[in-house]
Amino acid sequence: MPREFTTEDYRARLERATAAAADAGLAGLVVAPGPDLLHLTGYRPTAITERLTALVLTAGHEPALIVPALERPDAEKAVGAPAVRLVDWTDGQDPYAAAVPLIDRSGRYGISDNAWAMHLLGLQAALPGTGWTSLTETLPMLRAVKDADELERLAAAGGAADAAYRGILEVTFAGRRETDVAADLAALLIQYGHSQVDFTVVGSGPNGADPHHEAGERVIGTGDTVVLDFGGLKDGYGSDTTRTVHVGADVPDEVRKVHDVVRQAQQTAFEAVRPGVSCQEIDRIARRVITEAGYGEFFIHRTGHGIGITTHEPPYLVEGEERPLVPGMCFSIEPGVYLPGRFGVRIEDIVTVTEQGGRRFNNTPHELGIVS
Amino acid sequence: MPREFTTEDYRARLERATAAAADAGLAGLVVAPGPDLLHLTGYRPTAITERLTALVLTAGHEPALIVPALERPDAEKAVGAPAVRLVDWTDGQDPYAAAVPLIDRSGRYGISDNAWAMHLLGLQAALPGTGWTSLTETLPMLRAVKDADELERLAAAGGAADAAYRGILEVTFAGRRETDVAADLAALLIQYGHSQVDFTVVGSGPNGADPHHEAGERVIGTGDTVVLDFGGLKDGYGSDTTRTVHVGADVPDEVRKVHDVVRQAQQTAFEAVRPGVSCQEIDRIARRVITEAGYGEFFIHRTGHGIGITTHEPPYLVEGEERPLVPGMCFSIEPGVYLPGRFGVRIEDIVTVTEQGGRRFNNTPHELGIVS
Repeated sequence: MPREFTTEDYRARLERATAAAADAGLAGLVVAPGPDLLHLTGYRPTAITERLTALVLTAGHEPALIVPALERPDAEKAVGAPAVRLVDWTDGQDPYAAAVPLIDRSGRYGISDNAWAMHLLGLQAALPGTGWTSLTETLPMLRAVKDADELERLAAAGGAADAAYRGILEVTFAGRRETDVAADLAALLIQYGHSQVDFTVVGSGPNGADPHHEAGERVIGTGDTVVLDFGGLKDGYGSDTTRTVHVGADVPDEVRKVHDVVRQAQQTAFEAVRPGVSCQEIDRIARRVITEAGYGEFFIHRTGHGIGITTHEPPYLVEGEERPLVPGMCFSIEPGVYLPGRFGVRIEDIVTVTEQGGRRFNNTPHELGIVS
Repeated sequence: MPREFTTEDYRARLERATAAAADAGLAGLVVAPGPDLLHLTGYRPTAITERLTALVLTAGHEPALIVPALERPDAEKAVGAPAVRLVDWTDGQDPYAAAVPLIDRSGRYGISDNAWAMHLLGLQAALPGTGWTSLTETLPMLRAVKDADELERLAAAGGAADAAYRGILEVTFAGRRETDVAADLAALLIQYGHSQVDFTVVGSGPNGADPHHEAGERVIGTGDTVVLDFGGLKDGYGSDTTRTVHVGADVPDEVRKVHDVVRQAQQTAFEAVRPGVSCQEIDRIARRVITEAGYGEFFIHRTGHGIGITTHEPPYLVEGEERPLVPGMCFSIEPGVYLPGRFGVRIEDIVTVTEQGGRRFNNTPHELGIVS
């Protein structure tokens, strides 16, 4: 077990976030329930509802957490609660009025991506002079650079996902449904210490050509190429890895060819990881390998996404994301090729940026796995 | 099993929603993944992520569903998909640019409460002349008035919750943890046909005085008053009921007194339900009974919330909600009294509005239940 985060950890994060907002030219931040609030305070409301809960950080002021009065006892139990001032409001009161004294009326605030539009509209109406921008737009690095404790947890989550992959190579695929193999994957993730399974994609044959297919009733057969993409949370941090396997050793030439192209794209992109390279450059490098091999039109998603206390967060490795890689960032590198109606191939590792280059948190072989 | 909703059902809902928007003076609606999108199209994306998915309804135009290209195959499978035009965008493109041609540049749109702030900010930037308002603010009745098929499902969910309550009266409370009784409640809800359990509150003794307490490690003892608040989804529609029980027949006078006050408040509010009465009036009526009994300061939440495909939605029975009750609306009536450090009492039924008055979907006795 990693050590538990303390109130002082949260206090330090709150201070770093407030300073980062100032550096980005913002008056402060408005943080909604979800991963941002969890990261900064350890507080996770029982349910995210229409009732306003928001952490307000303004430079030079004590952090304030606005909570519905009836959720105050829950908020008080959060490990980070002693580092913030709790401000409650009661049903029937205007919750945005509680926010007004905490917010600079002429400043510009970053707001959590997943804050409800309803709440942003309420704040915009109550504070017509205040400007708003999404955290991903202006402060994407708020949670993107992980500290040593976080890297340790992500590495452990990656190791557990690797163990699950080694386990799934031993099970029978032929004659079973995708959902059966998905259930095996979920059980393996739990067995290796995950507290939560977020996705277990088993895309067999033509289903593998839909990158967002999860797992269905299709019965897997010998000769199928199968995309396995799975992950979840272990000790609060995410795993996410993809390997492509083939049922039976008789692998068609095109499957082998496409798999080699994707493997080369993944490896080339990984080798390009170092501080200062832009996020989009990693995407371009992976894409170039696939395009030069003639499959560019079949690589229909970005190359990767950040990971931490969620399995999808900044930085995004995508065209247009010009921000540079920084040591401590963690993200997937997951190029793929999807031939509609036929099969798909994807290879994905979680990678962190070090001063010396990329370091993988997934370390199972990239070779096309052969299953029975 | 109730009959499945059809493409024509969704087409009719889309037309009603577009008409309701026009009636409310809006150019149209922007509907985010979640209950609004599910209600209007039957589409529930695998995950709600930072990638823009949005249904755009503009009077006089065909409904359009903006989806990420890689989620298009999923969207196409939705029962309501044939009733909308799918518009996809690819990673690296500006998703808001896809929305621009679909939205009236000088109109005012209602947007789902739970749309991400990030997406609202993107739309505001791409469409600086367009106005925005939250659906709850301007069109709270979009899903509030249920049709006959929906009422049938809500009644069935309520009946199943009632059966679970009757079952829980038979289990042993004394000497077991709250979480044990909560697990029993969850198992009973599933046994009686729920597909999903959303909450199983077991608030014993002082924990009952925190209306948002769920269930903890506290061992329940003889002499405890226990609040039981539980519900979930059955055939896609919600249940939510609360009864308060006492462990052992030796009930303290104040528990009995408070319980009688809450029961009277719940009954009086229920009897006031009829078309045309304002939502806040129901709240005021329940509150008046409790205030006149001297416990007003301990009734620290609104009287109720709507229910449908979610367990918390408009209409809200709260001070300031002046809109009238309309036949087909469904909501909780759930007054409570919470004496800090001591105990709590709450009684909750789901109620629908008919031309003749209120009709309960929960019909177990309101008497203080005695358990062993």
